Formats: sequence, C-alpha cells, structure tokens
Amino acid sequence: MKANSTDTGDMYARILDTAETLLRRFGPEKLTVTDVARAMDMSHGNVYRHIPSKAALRAAVIARWLEKVSHLTDAIAQNAGPADQRLREWLVELAVIKQRKVTEDAEMLAGAALVVRESPDVEQEHSARLRIQVIKILQDGLKDGTLPHAGDVGVSASAILNATFRYHHPDLVAKGGAPEKQLAALQDVVSLILAGLQRLPE
Amino acid sequence: MKANSTDTGDMYARILDTAETLLRRFGPEKLTVTDVARAMDMSHGNVYRHIPSKAALRAAVIARWLEKVSHLTDAIAQNAGPADQRLREWLVELAVIKQRKVTEDAEMLAGAALVVRESPDVEQEHSARLRIQVIKILQDGLKDGTLPHAGDVGVSASAILNATFRYHHPDLVAKGGAPEKQLAALQDVVSLILAGLQRLPE
Repeated sequence: MKANSTDTGDMYARILDTAETLLRRFGPEKLTVTDVARAMDMSHGNVYRHIPSKAALRAAVIARWLEKVSHLTDAIAQNAGPADQRLREWLVELAVIKQRKVTEDAEMLAGAALVVRESPDVEQEHSARLRIQVIKILQDGLKDGTLPHAGDVGVSASAILNATFRYHHPDLVAKGGAPEKQLAALQDVVSLILAGLQRLPE
Repeated sequence: MKANSTDTGDMYARILDTAETLLRRFGPEKLTVTDVARAMDMSHGNVYRHIPSKAALRAAVIARWLEKVSHLTDAIAQNAGPADQRLREWLVELAVIKQRKVTEDAEMLAGAALVVRESPDVEQEHSARLRIQVIKILQDGLKDGTLPHAGDVGVSASAILNATFRYHHPDLVAKGGAPEKQLAALQDVVSLILAGLQRLPE
C-alpha cells in the first residue's frame, strides 16, 4: 500500500516507525492500526489508507526490519576484497546479527515468527535477497580465482545457506548455546565449505 | 536400572516393549509405570524395581529407539566400500530415517522431544554415537585415499553434522517441506562437503 508521492512515502515511513516502537514495547500480537493512529494523533481511517490491516502492518514492520539485515550483509557482498574471505565474513556477519537479535530484540523476532506464518512472501523475499548476495560473492570468486570450484553458483549458494542454516535461523540460534561456541562451530563449517569451493577443478 | 542377570534383562526388555506400545498409542505424556504394570499383569512395585519413575521410563524407551537408529547407520560406517561414497550414503540414510519417523512415528518423536528436555544425556549419547560413526568413515577415507583432506577427523565430523543439521533434526525435517526436495538439497550440501574433503592437500 506504499503510495508514490514523497509525502505519502514519508507518512508510510512514520507509520512504520511508530508501529515498530509499539511492537517492541507491547509485542506483535497487540499491535493494532488503531493504536498506531492514536500514538500518531491521527484518525485510524487515515492510517488505514496506508496499511489495510493488522496483519499487513506487522508484515510491513518486519519486512523493513529484515531489509535492514540484508542491507548490512550486502555491504560485504559489494566489497572489493578477495571473494573467499568475503564469503567467510558474510556468513559470520549474518550469524552475529542473528545472535544480537536473539539477545536484544525478542519482540521483533516474535513478530517475525508470526509474519512468517501469516505472510510467507516476506521471508521468501528476504531469503532471496540473501541468496543473491552469496551468488554475487561466488561470481566474484570465479573471477578473482579465490573460489574456482564455485561451479553452478545458484546451486552452490543454496547449498552454502543450507549448510549454515543452524547458525542463521533465529530459533536454532536461540537454542544453540553460547554465542562464542556457535561462532567457533560455524567457522569450522565455513572452512569445510571453503575447502570445496577453493579446490581447483580437475 | 538395568540389572545383570538374563532374567531381569529380559524383564527389562519386555517392560520397554510394553511401554513403547503404550507410548505409541497414548502419547508420551500419558505413559505411566502403573499402566505398563497393568498391561503386563504385574504389580507396579515389580515394574518400579526396574524403572524408578515415569521420566526414567520415557527416557529408557526413547534411548532404545535412538539406539535402533544409530544401529542402522552404523552398518554403513562399518562397511568396506570407498569412504567418500559411504559418507554420502550415511548422511542420506540418516535423513531418510528421520523423514520416515516424522511421517510415521509422531508419538515417539513427541516422546523424544520431551526426553531431550528432561534427560539431555539421552540425546547427547545418541549424538556422540553418530559422531563416532562419521569419524570412523573419515578415518577410512584418509586410509583409502578417497577423503585425503579429512584433516582433524573430530573437527571435520562435527562440521559435517552441523552442516547437515537441517536434514537430520526432526523438527526441521517436519517443517522442511517435501521429502524429495529436502533430499535433493541435502545431496547438494553433501557434494559441497565432499569437494572439500576430497581435495588434495597442497
């Protein structure tokens, strides 16, 4: 429901800012369009013009929050350094972001879990963005010679994300024990993955 | 509480057989020592001599069930074929066993989830047994030359099990979509892992 003109775009962003604050304070189940309108001193009809429902409001807040995550990791994907090092850095950075969210952002994670069920496309788009970043790094690795065995980069990117799933999935990170132990285990998985990608084709 | 003489050993096995049947029928929460005694036409004092509590009964049933799983995969670990092929076979076999349990053995899985919380040592022993099997295959691969890059086999075994976690963890298998799609994705992860292990040291 994002409108085109800058004014309505600003209003949309302000609605999401307010909604995010309320979601963090009261939890995702209690976030309503009416409460957002009240907090912004607007009529709820005015807010409904931008966001049609409670589910859409939650989905929009979580979608923006996930975009911030993929924006952070994208900085590594777009870097100029050796691709093999960037792949390690990217996988560790994503794990560190997820660990931080687990310890510091429980309400947003609860919101994300709800949105995954209600609006699966929000998570699918996020996963697709992350996969595109890994594909970019693998393509760079074929070019700079640091990942000569990257092969079919789409297949490899999916396999890499699947192989590191337990360090990136919030529920598994939350149940996975001490953060530093998880990161050490992830480093070993990344070494295993990199050994295969770095291997020279026969 | 397993006793030494064959007679009490037999009795212990019969108690677990009965308990497993009851657990499958009524679920893990409802499994009691008293019900097992009634089903076996014994006094419950007699059953308590072998199993001291409801939690111990659940744990013993699940421990035996998990031993059957590791017994199946151990056949592959102890085989004589090329180690790289056996590693793939082992990882796929474990995933197939877990998929079967998810579709056919929901009550036992619920029991396992409960036991993991109540008696974490049961799952830890199971994980340790599986890891020893992977270590065995990696050692074989160093000897037969099919996995020359297996390196520190303990570290590699843990990394391999962590990298395939989402295909072996019952909850993730249950939520992971179509079994054949999961197996195809696992095959790609295994190829990625094998490429690293097969790589010749530089």
